[in-house]
Amino acid sequence: MTLTRILNRLAPASVALALLTGCAQTPAAAPKAPAGQASAKPADALPSWNDGATKQAILSFVAKTTTAGSPDFVPPEQRVATFDNDGTLWVEQPMYTQMLFALDRVKVLAPQHPEWKDKEPFASLLKGDVKAALAGGEHAMLEILMVTHAGMSTAEFEQIVKDWIATAKHPELKRPYTECVYQPMVELLAYLRANGFKTFIVSGGGIEFMRPWAEKSYGVPPEQVVGSSIKTKYEMRDGKPVLMRLPEVDFIDDKDGKPIGINSHIGRRPVCAFGNSDGDQQMLEWTQGGPGARLMMLVHHDDAKREFAYGAESKIGTFSDALMAEAKAQKWTVISMKDDWKTIFAFETK
Amino acid sequence: MTLTRILNRLAPASVALALLTGCAQTPAAAPKAPAGQASAKPADALPSWNDGATKQAILSFVAKTTTAGSPDFVPPEQRVATFDNDGTLWVEQPMYTQMLFALDRVKVLAPQHPEWKDKEPFASLLKGDVKAALAGGEHAMLEILMVTHAGMSTAEFEQIVKDWIATAKHPELKRPYTECVYQPMVELLAYLRANGFKTFIVSGGGIEFMRPWAEKSYGVPPEQVVGSSIKTKYEMRDGKPVLMRLPEVDFIDDKDGKPIGINSHIGRRPVCAFGNSDGDQQMLEWTQGGPGARLMMLVHHDDAKREFAYGAESKIGTFSDALMAEAKAQKWTVISMKDDWKTIFAFETK
Repeated sequence: MTLTRILNRLAPASVALALLTGCAQTPAAAPKAPAGQASAKPADALPSWNDGATKQAILSFVAKTTTAGSPDFVPPEQRVATFDNDGTLWVEQPMYTQMLFALDRVKVLAPQHPEWKDKEPFASLLKGDVKAALAGGEHAMLEILMVTHAGMSTAEFEQIVKDWIATAKHPELKRPYTECVYQPMVELLAYLRANGFKTFIVSGGGIEFMRPWAEKSYGVPPEQVVGSSIKTKYEMRDGKPVLMRLPEVDFIDDKDGKPIGINSHIGRRPVCAFGNSDGDQQMLEWTQGGPGARLMMLVHHDDAKREFAYGAESKIGTFSDALMAEAKAQKWTVISMKDDWKTIFAFETK
Repeated sequence: MTLTRILNRLAPASVALALLTGCAQTPAAAPKAPAGQASAKPADALPSWNDGATKQAILSFVAKTTTAGSPDFVPPEQRVATFDNDGTLWVEQPMYTQMLFALDRVKVLAPQHPEWKDKEPFASLLKGDVKAALAGGEHAMLEILMVTHAGMSTAEFEQIVKDWIATAKHPELKRPYTECVYQPMVELLAYLRANGFKTFIVSGGGIEFMRPWAEKSYGVPPEQVVGSSIKTKYEMRDGKPVLMRLPEVDFIDDKDGKPIGINSHIGRRPVCAFGNSDGDQQMLEWTQGGPGARLMMLVHHDDAKREFAYGAESKIGTFSDALMAEAKAQKWTVISMKDDWKTIFAFETK
């Protein structure tokens, strides 16, 4: 079942339209009952969320910021919502998807690099020992990222990502990665857009790794994706202009980098922000720092049965005790995947 | 007369709405005549453009890219139009507006900097000798830009720009700078948006210098402004998060930088691009390099009577002979302000 068809089933047409076009529609009015009939209960725009304080917090935030005359009304052009990606919109365990992509690329590229047989971190990787390969820490990871993410044009890289994401499967869920997106968050994105919010991804992941599939999976167009990047160089190749991807970090869109990336790409402060880890703290602080009504939420991975359970101890998607304390102190909502989400993945309900 | 009122007069409601919301509307259908009446001539969406090949090139490009079933049809989400700012959307002579802003700021800041009395380029500037001050070339200019553009938070800088633009006047036109925008281009922006294009500014000017007024003047929201930038630093000040502007260049959005900036901020290749100088050549090349119908245009300042006449010899907004030759070879349209524009500034017609 395609995402479009799932959405058409789950959401009102305006929500589906907003998801597909990525353009904010005028605020969705409650459906009016024809004259002479009892008014029908409005369709639930967030059917994968369990009723409770978390869902209610979302609904009442949207109601008060979009109701003309409300003291918390936010004009449509200021309705900016930002979402982290890994662990907030899709699965990040047992390893960041982009890292799994890079590992797959090393295997594909190995025949062109006979020297990798004796060179770490590639030697271990090619023997299938990921743990040993990554023992080199950040330096090893950066080396793997650079050989797999640089040295080609932006158009070539886009095609590589598209080909990979169309065929690769999550090692444990055994599903394409684009099916490993959280259905409640897909509904939330569409619900916000149906209410005039412009939705952005603000992720530590690579901007050009996310753009090729974010529009189809989340309804977020390339121009609303903010992420980490490497430098590019404009040049003519066979008389055609290309942007070549260079093995040099340009920007890291994580922690302090998130407000910086938001300011650079969006130029407005979000009124709501959604994350799941220590890397999102500054984005939530920055969102909260503005005037008027604000909504800050953190997805907590506490459902080992349906997804993964991890937090302070995890190196991937760390949700430290300090962040939990901060969330409590700042009154940020912690979303319990176990309690707040009726469905996690759309494929569960097939 | 406000811009809104001018637009309401000049343009169909859908165009005005698109200009104000900055959100692409569904393609404007030709107005339908009521049944039984002869069809009326559709309103001219570009009334400040003289009839001729240039106006016709715009109209036929929009028609063929937005007509379903046309071989040149471009899906709405791919309708990206990019515009240079200085010299393309507003006046850049006798000096870039942002430079005039910086010079004004030096005067305002001088009392806090007694040392400037004996230090170039400030000493000359404060004596009113701009030419001597700028004799130091790029280094002098950069020094002036940094002391006037860095050292405050992004919110403070935004307010400084807003206050200045609300009161400062163009030295020769004696009008607020926001009235020194080209009416034909304002109409073109609105016309493209009314036909489902998303309009972006891609300028060598400072991104945070343009954003505070670009939405009101051009209908281009902050998230669709791409420009040069300095680095920022996220920090807590009195318990509130701020982004401090640092005296360090981050990105120069000019020449080769334009395709790089477009890729970084938009992540899609424009299908039409508008510039006026050598700094725009790569943006036009990059636009042309994609498949399908494309429209590339360069504004030529050849109207000394109504605006300014300059080209190859000018240091500001250089339109070199090489660019003119390239435009001819690549079949880019050169817009003659003298011949193609009926009106240059909205205030002319008041």
